Amino acid sequence: MSNLREEALKIHKENRGKLGVHSKVPVRNAKDLSLAYSPGVAEPCLDIYEDDSKAYDYTMKGNLVAVVSDGTAVLGLGNIGPKAAMPVMEGKALLFKSFADVDAFPICLDTTDPDKIVEVVKLLEPTFGGVNLEDIAAPQCFEIEERLRKICNIPVFHDDQHGTAIVTAAGLLNALKLANKKIEEIHVVANGAGAAGVAIVKLLLHMGVKDVILCDTKGIIYEGRPFGMNPFKEEMARITNKEQKQGTLADALLGADVFVGVSAAGAVTKEMVRSMNHDPIIFAMANPVPEIMPQEAKEAGALVVGTGRSDFPNQVNNVLAFPGIFRGALDVHAKQINEEMKLAAVYAIAGLIAEEDLHTDYVIPDPFDRRVVAYVSAAVAYAAMETGVSQKHVNVEEIKKCLLALAEETQVVIV
Amino acid sequence: MSNLREEALKIHKENRGKLGVHSKVPVRNAKDLSLAYSPGVAEPCLDIYEDDSKAYDYTMKGNLVAVVSDGTAVLGLGNIGPKAAMPVMEGKALLFKSFADVDAFPICLDTTDPDKIVEVVKLLEPTFGGVNLEDIAAPQCFEIEERLRKICNIPVFHDDQHGTAIVTAAGLLNALKLANKKIEEIHVVANGAGAAGVAIVKLLLHMGVKDVILCDTKGIIYEGRPFGMNPFKEEMARITNKEQKQGTLADALLGADVFVGVSAAGAVTKEMVRSMNHDPIIFAMANPVPEIMPQEAKEAGALVVGTGRSDFPNQVNNVLAFPGIFRGALDVHAKQINEEMKLAAVYAIAGLIAEEDLHTDYVIPDPFDRRVVAYVSAAVAYAAMETGVSQKHVNVEEIKKCLLALAEETQVVIV
Repeated sequence: MSNLREEALKIHKENRGKLGVHSKVPVRNAKDLSLAYSPGVAEPCLDIYEDDSKAYDYTMKGNLVAVVSDGTAVLGLGNIGPKAAMPVMEGKALLFKSFADVDAFPICLDTTDPDKIVEVVKLLEPTFGGVNLEDIAAPQCFEIEERLRKICNIPVFHDDQHGTAIVTAAGLLNALKLANKKIEEIHVVANGAGAAGVAIVKLLLHMGVKDVILCDTKGIIYEGRPFGMNPFKEEMARITNKEQKQGTLADALLGADVFVGVSAAGAVTKEMVRSMNHDPIIFAMANPVPEIMPQEAKEAGALVVGTGRSDFPNQVNNVLAFPGIFRGALDVHAKQINEEMKLAAVYAIAGLIAEEDLHTDYVIPDPFDRRVVAYVSAAVAYAAMETGVSQKHVNVEEIKKCLLALAEETQVVIV
Repeated sequence: MSNLREEALKIHKENRGKLGVHSKVPVRNAKDLSLAYSPGVAEPCLDIYEDDSKAYDYTMKGNLVAVVSDGTAVLGLGNIGPKAAMPVMEGKALLFKSFADVDAFPICLDTTDPDKIVEVVKLLEPTFGGVNLEDIAAPQCFEIEERLRKICNIPVFHDDQHGTAIVTAAGLLNALKLANKKIEEIHVVANGAGAAGVAIVKLLLHMGVKDVILCDTKGIIYEGRPFGMNPFKEEMARITNKEQKQGTLADALLGADVFVGVSAAGAVTKEMVRSMNHDPIIFAMANPVPEIMPQEAKEAGALVVGTGRSDFPNQVNNVLAFPGIFRGALDVHAKQINEEMKLAAVYAIAGLIAEEDLHTDYVIPDPFDRRVVAYVSAAVAYAAMETGVSQKHVNVEEIKKCLLALAEETQVVIV
């Protein structure tokens, strides 16, 4: 660890951060200056003034995403504040750039007041083509995203919620093929009612899972539970747990097909896994130590185990989702990232692994599989155009061809 | 002009803007990812959490300036709004990068409410090492800058005010050497009570000019003038125009030594120049057409004429000031840009032209004279350290040596 610490500090210090700004046009002489700045710059200004959609043509807006955080839920470090959150937000921007050539920029805000965060992001809208909310604590993150999605004309996407949900759902789709179970028939138990847990549950319900039981540190969440509730958990209680079961996580897991953990190290025991239905599927994504170690889960009969770690198979890594999702959204000047676009990303990620290649240790593509961003972005752009949230039409046939080739190759129908 | 229009639109469109974001560290594999992002990124986060001055070491903050505008006073185009202002703000960022290797980033805000602008900039403070306010209309710009300077711990600098003032003052210092007049003895008339006009007057008074008469479109500004006043003009009336003269610009210019125009084309006639004291100095900076054309001013007896245009001698171009000022401020982690730092910039710019090279057509260095940024930044960093607003000590001796060499070369004492 001390070696990792030293190396990590070194690369941050040597470069004074990880991100830089660069010029795309030269400024060598008065002629260059007259085109990039006064007086020539007045021309694109006037054109945008006439028709503000031209901001996508003449400015960096069309390829620019704000990575916005208040520093309240940074990695596993918790509420370390906006200054200390900067390295993570720069890192996130780095991933946007490295994986999808999206220009992303860290915006760390010196407030934890949801009203102010919403106001600032809305006021920043002219500059950016999209907003990625990052490491904002639940339950504030739900309200902030929901309000911003309503008032903004650019995509607003809380990656801790939806990125994790999308990749988990993609892994689950593939795992179910191996388990030979249908999504409508499975019982899912999710542990952890934070940003990721809530988003995963909602996405799975949207994808056809009939019921999910959601647990938090106090056990199963049900309507009117007299302890540890808040308005968001009350809402979750209404849309989950049809039988309104009460009890512990162990009670919930009895007979379940799928465990999805975004909670804490060691929350799941071998006994719990043994109590599940045949061929249980385990996504134990607590970081750095999973709810149950893959080896133990396998010993207890798990068919597929995914974690958040790169040193185990089936890593649920958001980098499989957010770069391609924003790439696709930006390419069509999307006004939002809607449910259809998220689903398109799920199917694109899942479909990338051909059925004949599927394996209990390979239900999620490798984060460095460079096909991912192309397929995800094409699927997302297509879904945006089909659902009317795009402001620019890219060649649908071209994208379809790409998607069909993918579908043919992988036997998964995209969207 | 149509050629300029086409060329300008082309370079903006081909590049989709002028600015990009780039990675300073590679992300090629899981190892890279573990250092730049999770889990390694936690190390700089924790260090900054312990000691937030380390944000300057581990993040882009230390080299990062926000170029903030509300789009209310863009170039000569007026209030075209934040979206249409983007090309100018990107252009400004481009100049920061090209001239001083400062990473600058456009922030165009969808509000013209000073309270909101102040609030947003303050909330953005964790991300940036400095704030350059740009193209915000007077008189709001005065209040916004003043309030931000009080509440921020990073430099806040309204370039339209101070950049123009600093370069004008530098040109004036050199022009006075040619006219053989002392700064304490001259009569100055400024025309235009906007951002630049007000800042020029204040800076000249600070530098030892005993009296200035400030005019606007309605003539000389004096206390209690019953028309066209506002609180900022009232304040200017109190600190200028000691004899509380009334009348027109022509009345003001009678016997004056210096005219400084940041007003409108054609405001000054040959007759007015002829009515001035011997060897009058004219800075006619209205853009694109000056208050009086240099040729006419010379014919009427002007000794030195400066304009805002690159196709005439003595161009007052802010690019001589702001890149070096921020470079110097960032290099010492300055908490503000104070008057001493501005003065240091004035003397550095003026001093760059050796006395033997001074000439009526060469009182201001060429914008592409690449020595400028080095000298200005050294002078500004030195002044910041001397006045206690720096948070980091760079090698004073090294900077002094550089400054002394400059001073020796140019016979101007720096600071």
